Amino acid sequence: MGDDAALFAARKGYETILTCDWFLEGTHFLRELHPADAVGWKCLARAASDIAAMGGEPRCFLLSLAVPKTHTGRWLDEFLGGLRRAARRFGCAAAGGDTTRQDRILINVTVAGEVRAGRAALRSGARAADLIFVSGRLGEAECGLRLLRSRAVRPGNPLAQRHLYPEPRLALGRWLTERRMATAMMDISDGLSTDLGRLCAASGVGARIEAGKLPVIGVENRLGARAFDPVQLALNGGGDDDELLFTVPPGKAGWIHDSKLPARVTCIGTITRDRKVLLIQADGRERVIVPGGWDAFRDGQ
Amino acid sequence: MGDDAALFAARKGYETILTCDWFLEGTHFLRELHPADAVGWKCLARAASDIAAMGGEPRCFLLSLAVPKTHTGRWLDEFLGGLRRAARRFGCAAAGGDTTRQDRILINVTVAGEVRAGRAALRSGARAADLIFVSGRLGEAECGLRLLRSRAVRPGNPLAQRHLYPEPRLALGRWLTERRMATAMMDISDGLSTDLGRLCAASGVGARIEAGKLPVIGVENRLGARAFDPVQLALNGGGDDDELLFTVPPGKAGWIHDSKLPARVTCIGTITRDRKVLLIQADGRERVIVPGGWDAFRDGQ
Repeated sequence: MGDDAALFAARKGYETILTCDWFLEGTHFLRELHPADAVGWKCLARAASDIAAMGGEPRCFLLSLAVPKTHTGRWLDEFLGGLRRAARRFGCAAAGGDTTRQDRILINVTVAGEVRAGRAALRSGARAADLIFVSGRLGEAECGLRLLRSRAVRPGNPLAQRHLYPEPRLALGRWLTERRMATAMMDISDGLSTDLGRLCAASGVGARIEAGKLPVIGVENRLGARAFDPVQLALNGGGDDDELLFTVPPGKAGWIHDSKLPARVTCIGTITRDRKVLLIQADGRERVIVPGGWDAFRDGQ
Repeated sequence: MGDDAALFAARKGYETILTCDWFLEGTHFLRELHPADAVGWKCLARAASDIAAMGGEPRCFLLSLAVPKTHTGRWLDEFLGGLRRAARRFGCAAAGGDTTRQDRILINVTVAGEVRAGRAALRSGARAADLIFVSGRLGEAECGLRLLRSRAVRPGNPLAQRHLYPEPRLALGRWLTERRMATAMMDISDGLSTDLGRLCAASGVGARIEAGKLPVIGVENRLGARAFDPVQLALNGGGDDDELLFTVPPGKAGWIHDSKLPARVTCIGTITRDRKVLLIQADGRERVIVPGGWDAFRDGQ
């Protein structure tokens, strides 16, 4: 810290993973909706989730921060508090950064991690007949965001917590790559419909997923979120679930069911040779999945 | 490119250097003053200069870019053109990034470089009696910025070029660290008066520099910049000179004069035990140097 740049040495036999993520007021968070410490937590969690998606371990981060004069006191203290908590949780040390003034809050986080050389999971490795898995439950974070927006819940609500303090699937990502289980992997940060399309495009394949198999928000939460269709939330929720989407060859899928995984995972469908990305609905009809998640270039200003 | 994160392996016996830099419309550049390709060049040059300051070689960069809808066509093409030229010049490959929309142009650049393990030059190594050197001429970039601002010159003017297309001192930084010449080093991005103060604070020392020794803007350029005091420009110019400031033990200073250095350097004074940072004026009087260069938290919004 305090020098022009940070020094970092990957362990022997490991490669360095680098990722950077915007976290901008008005685009990725709202000043009046997101507590400062959630902004601190979430900006690092999002970048760490990219490391999880490669099967790596985060090691250190650089913080680029621009804040207005009005936010250098209490807001900044709380922001740094949330950031520090996340840094401890993810095992990711502060290594430097760049600060400046702006009239709105701008954040960019770079995370450096490491992964055993040659083991990183990419988006491009999915092959026909591979099974498609997702971790956790999809749409919870989006649901939490909508409830916060509608002022229907307070930050302590479990769905709101999922949106405000996401937990990147670091242990699961490592588990899968250490055992060479995943042929392709990425994190779902922009909604399953958008991100599955990206994984298929990168791999030159298609997919068939079953609506009935999607791990949607839990029954206990549906009471508080009656207005939302759980399948739509799972497909198109853009609220930063930070869950992993990965593909496993059919011969290895038994391991995924039988083993003690660090997180709940669900098989939602299969990879196909045909490049279409299809949803099999409850009534057996197929429909093409249109990317409907978060896309900054469509939803943004 | 295209995956969640970039993979990077430092050569054996080398450490990775990481740095990130804001480059924001309104703070670091102006839409109407800075051509798009200069914005592309300069955002990478600034971050690469931090690598030069550690004595390292840039290897790859991540670009975080936010642009308004109006700037996704020609502006973006020219921006990427300038960025690509800089990437080729500095030997620094594009490795990923994050893009989004905003109503103003926001740029953050992360550069990963490498330096032989244990050789990186830090700010904290200066010792009393070390000689203080700077590369190039100080204040040229600031002078170029002022001339551009006053509409007195066009972008082709040599001083304007120094501001728009700075050349980080990569070869000099490497030369010095490979030979273990520099006890401390940093780049001058915020003006000598500010950055010398930072180097002295990090090293727990002071400095005496001589006004008469400062490498100020060349005589040939003073005609076009008569309104500006060359010594003031050299001390307080914040226009991104991207020159190196470094200290050399007295026993090694002979090498600095005699050798074929990759850039012109000038000895401007000595490090002192006393923590004051002093300027010896032409009339022999001493005055304390007050940081007067660029400081985002003073000059910004």
